[in-house]
Amino acid sequence: MNKINKDEALVVFSGGQDSTTCLFWAKRRFGKVHALTFRYGQKHSLEVEIAGKLAEKAGVDFHVMDVPLIGRLGSNSLTDPDIVMDQEKPEGSCPNTFVPGRNMFFLSIAAVLAREHGISHIVTGVSQTDFSGYPDCRDAFIKSLNVTLNLAMDEQFIIHTPLMWIDKAQTWALADEMGVLDVIRNETLTCYNGIPGDGCGHCPACRLRRDGLEKYLASRGQQADSPTAARY
Amino acid sequence: MNKINKDEALVVFSGGQDSTTCLFWAKRRFGKVHALTFRYGQKHSLEVEIAGKLAEKAGVDFHVMDVPLIGRLGSNSLTDPDIVMDQEKPEGSCPNTFVPGRNMFFLSIAAVLAREHGISHIVTGVSQTDFSGYPDCRDAFIKSLNVTLNLAMDEQFIIHTPLMWIDKAQTWALADEMGVLDVIRNETLTCYNGIPGDGCGHCPACRLRRDGLEKYLASRGQQADSPTAARY
Repeated sequence: MNKINKDEALVVFSGGQDSTTCLFWAKRRFGKVHALTFRYGQKHSLEVEIAGKLAEKAGVDFHVMDVPLIGRLGSNSLTDPDIVMDQEKPEGSCPNTFVPGRNMFFLSIAAVLAREHGISHIVTGVSQTDFSGYPDCRDAFIKSLNVTLNLAMDEQFIIHTPLMWIDKAQTWALADEMGVLDVIRNETLTCYNGIPGDGCGHCPACRLRRDGLEKYLASRGQQADSPTAARY
Repeated sequence: MNKINKDEALVVFSGGQDSTTCLFWAKRRFGKVHALTFRYGQKHSLEVEIAGKLAEKAGVDFHVMDVPLIGRLGSNSLTDPDIVMDQEKPEGSCPNTFVPGRNMFFLSIAAVLAREHGISHIVTGVSQTDFSGYPDCRDAFIKSLNVTLNLAMDEQFIIHTPLMWIDKAQTWALADEMGVLDVIRNETLTCYNGIPGDGCGHCPACRLRRDGLEKYLASRGQQADSPTAARY
């Protein structure tokens, strides 16, 4: 590492609800923020376009990296059009929306790039609370990876996981606190079927997102179908 | 993991002295061995060709994976023809032959492929003894990575490092014990300048390899320029 920019952070950024919340979270904490998005053979290439627009809106540097390898590595329903997506987590195994090693590769690549730019803070939106059976969203994995990356490159990276212990309702509350609930509700893409905003409504990602929103809005005395914008 | 093949191993294989020694080591311990070689933008594409021939000679399955990403990630003298190679480790930093994160990516990809094939044993030729300033050759890194990979995929990989605590002379001794000293001396490629066998003789990799060979042969009462084949 040539020099350490203590005030810069790199956010692993997909343009979904969680990483967009993290992007705004990082904006409040660091002087300069970079968003890093991966193109790895997702069925929905719209994801990268949406990520770019959100990064522009947030006023952060936007980087896209092509990693087709990750989509090719293990069979999964997010990159293979022939696989029908699991709607629930199968007993005793990961759902087939699990791309093996995905977060490992994303964060490792992020670390190499961060090192090149003298950045030691890396932010990711993984959450153990709503982890849906993905082992690489758990806190123990992230902490172990942080140590491994530091050992691999003799560096002192700090991986931040602002959503690790909060659920989807609390993630919406965090967005609201930061004044970006509407941007995240209307302009992010979480849906496995590639529909931005409230999405298709029936895939596992949409259900989790909507349940969280309903719970949060109910705590505020609102319903999910009332426009959240009315509040401002 | 669909089923566990306890008797199969995957060797991260470059066709150099160390990984070839590990390939033969694995052949003695496991019923079936796979060699996995990476094409990542090395200046010397001969490396992959040599690896294929050695795998054939050893009678193991040979897999090549293209990972151009790894060569592009950080500037280094092994993949960038504009960088002149460090001859010694610079004080306070890694030599520029260090490809940041390389072993991390190689072993992580190996783990994802191993998982797909139900293989839990992964073999790598890294050595802390002659680690030449590469942080990703140290034992602490490999053990931390082993834990990280298991957590990332909820699996039980076992990373084997037969050369971790032995020096180059002992690595030659191990090859000799297994009856493959000549194959490794004459048919592997370790030289940074892309010359097989005894190599260019002056790059850091050649010097390390030759010093080890001389030390080992001296312990047997031979000189490095006498044909080792004469012994058989």
